[in-house]
Amino acid sequence: MAQAAETRAHGGDLDRAAARYGGSRAQWIDLSTGINPHAWPLQQALQSMPGSVWQTLPDHQAQDRLLDAARRVYGLHPSNGIVAAPGTQALIQLMPRLASGDRVAVRHPSYNEHRGVFADAGWQVTTAPDVGTVVCVNPNNPDGHRTASSDLIDLAVRVGTLIVDEAFMDMTEDDSLCRLPLPANVVVLRSFGKFFGLAGLRLGFAVGAPETMERISRLLGPWAVAGPTLHLGAAALNDHRWIAEMKQTLSRETLRLREMLASAGLDRLSGTDLFQTAEAPDAAALHETLARARIWTRIFDDWPDHIRFGLPASDAAFGRLEQALSQGVT
Amino acid sequence: MAQAAETRAHGGDLDRAAARYGGSRAQWIDLSTGINPHAWPLQQALQSMPGSVWQTLPDHQAQDRLLDAARRVYGLHPSNGIVAAPGTQALIQLMPRLASGDRVAVRHPSYNEHRGVFADAGWQVTTAPDVGTVVCVNPNNPDGHRTASSDLIDLAVRVGTLIVDEAFMDMTEDDSLCRLPLPANVVVLRSFGKFFGLAGLRLGFAVGAPETMERISRLLGPWAVAGPTLHLGAAALNDHRWIAEMKQTLSRETLRLREMLASAGLDRLSGTDLFQTAEAPDAAALHETLARARIWTRIFDDWPDHIRFGLPASDAAFGRLEQALSQGVT
Repeated sequence: MAQAAETRAHGGDLDRAAARYGGSRAQWIDLSTGINPHAWPLQQALQSMPGSVWQTLPDHQAQDRLLDAARRVYGLHPSNGIVAAPGTQALIQLMPRLASGDRVAVRHPSYNEHRGVFADAGWQVTTAPDVGTVVCVNPNNPDGHRTASSDLIDLAVRVGTLIVDEAFMDMTEDDSLCRLPLPANVVVLRSFGKFFGLAGLRLGFAVGAPETMERISRLLGPWAVAGPTLHLGAAALNDHRWIAEMKQTLSRETLRLREMLASAGLDRLSGTDLFQTAEAPDAAALHETLARARIWTRIFDDWPDHIRFGLPASDAAFGRLEQALSQGVT
Repeated sequence: MAQAAETRAHGGDLDRAAARYGGSRAQWIDLSTGINPHAWPLQQALQSMPGSVWQTLPDHQAQDRLLDAARRVYGLHPSNGIVAAPGTQALIQLMPRLASGDRVAVRHPSYNEHRGVFADAGWQVTTAPDVGTVVCVNPNNPDGHRTASSDLIDLAVRVGTLIVDEAFMDMTEDDSLCRLPLPANVVVLRSFGKFFGLAGLRLGFAVGAPETMERISRLLGPWAVAGPTLHLGAAALNDHRWIAEMKQTLSRETLRLREMLASAGLDRLSGTDLFQTAEAPDAAALHETLARARIWTRIFDDWPDHIRFGLPASDAAFGRLEQALSQGVT
C-alpha cells in the first residue's frame, strides 16, 4: 500500500538504494540522512524497564518525566510549554490545522515535508518572506543556513504563525528559540531521534506558549507517545554526560568529514555537525559513483549541484568514503 | 501540562485512583480497562530485534511485514487496504478530516473519544441514527451491543461516511467487517493493544477501500509507527497459536467473571470477552466500595446505574474481587 513517504524523496531509503544498485543493507554505508550514527546506548534502560510500560496505557507520570527531561536539555524558558509527539513528522502533519491563513512561506531549499504537508492541505506555498504563516528550519536542512533568534522574534511580530523547525539545533542549544519566552503564534519543533541516533523510536517535541501547546495536545489526542518511548526518551535526555561528550564527538567528526570532502575538491561546504552539504557541479554523477561503491548520499531534484553527506559511523566508513571520493570527484 | 486525555474520563487512570484512595500502583487490581491482562510475551522478539530497528527510520519492508500479518489475522477481504497508526486513537483524531458533512451520529452509550474528537472539531454530535457521518463501535463499549455486518453494509449506502470501531472484535473475527469488500465511504478501526495486552506499544489499524486508506496514510504522514512497534506487532500477529489459545482463555475467564458477578447479584450483564458491564442501581457506591479494596473499576458520568469490569489477571485477583463484591453489593 502506498505511503505518503513515497511521494516525497527522503534520505534513509536504503531499501531503494539496495534494490537499484545491489548489495544487502549491511554492505551499504548510509550517509543519506542527518541521523547520528552513534546511537545513545539504550540496552540498560530497556532491560530495567518494567513490563507494565508495554502493557498499560502510557501514564501521566511517565509523560511528565519525559517532558521535564526535555525542558532541561532544551533550556526551556519557564514560561514556555512543551508537548511530546510520536516523531516531529506527526507535529508537521498538524501544522496546517494550527496555523493561520491559507498561504505559507517556506525557504528554498528546505526540508520538503513542510511545503508538502501544507500543499496537501490546500495551502498556497510560496518562498516569499512574509505571508500569513512562515516556516523556518533553523539551522536549515540541507544548506545549514542559520537565522538569529532576534530575527525570528522580530519576524513573529509581522506574521500570523511562525513555525521554527530546530531538528538540528542540539549541537548549538544557545541559539535555540526554546530559551526565549515565546508568543502564542510561534511553534518550535524539536527532534529527538536525530541527535540521539534513535530515529526508529519516533519522538519529537513542540515548544511554545502554553495555550498553543494545549491546542497541539488536543489535536494529538491522548496516549500519543508509546510507553517505551516515554521511558527510553527520558533516560536518554537525562544522560547529560553522554550528551556533552557526543557534541564533542560530532564536532570532531564533522571537521574530519569537511577536511576529507575538501581534499577531494568539494570545498564549498555548509551544514551542521550532523551533515555537510557540498556544492558539486555534477552532484548526480557523484551520487551515482558513490552508490556503486555502496555509499548512499542525498541529492535533491529541486536543488541540483548539491550533495549532502551524513557522518560516517566508523574509521572504516571514513576510509571507504575517502576511497570512493578519489574515484568520483573529477 | 494539560493533555486532552484529562478532559475525557477513561479507564486505566490508576495514578488517579492511587492518589485518591491510597496505595501504590502495585497494590491495585486494575479492572478499569478492557485490556487483556495476559500480555503477549514479547521478550524473545525484543531480544532478537536488531539495533537498527531503534536507530534508523522505520522502513517499508518492516511496515509491509506488519500489514501482511494483520491482513491474515483480521481476515481482510483481498480488495481492502490497511494502514497502521500509532494507536487507534491517532486514527480517531483524523476522522473529522476524512468524514463528510458537519453532523455525526454516535450511539449512546459508547466510547467517548469518538463524540469528543468530532465535537472538538466543531461538528454537531447527535444520537440520531442517520446523518452525514455515523460512528458505530461494534461490539459496542461499554454495553457490548452488536450490530450485524449486513446491517452496517446497508447503513453505509444511506450515509456519507460510516466509521466502524472494532476495538473489541478480536474474539469474534467472523463478525468483522474487514472480511467484506468495503465501499470507499467506510472505515473500520482495529486496535492491537487490547487483545494482545500491549496498550503501551500504541498500534492500531484502519481498514477500507484502497483509495480511502491512501487518504488516511497521507494524513498520518511518513514513519507514523515506530520501528520497534512494527517489529513486535508483526511478531505478535504472526503468533497464531497464541492467538487461538488466548481466545479460549479469555472466553473461559469471562464466563468465570460473569458467574462471580451474577452470584453477587449483578446478573444483568453484557459485554465482550475483554470486559463485562453490569446494571447496578448504585454503581457509584459499588465503585467506591471496590476502590477502598484497591480494585479499580469503570463507571460512567453520562450512563449511571452501570459499572464495567475488565478481566482479573489471576486467581488471586478473582479471589479479591469475590471478597470485595461480597461487601459491596447490597
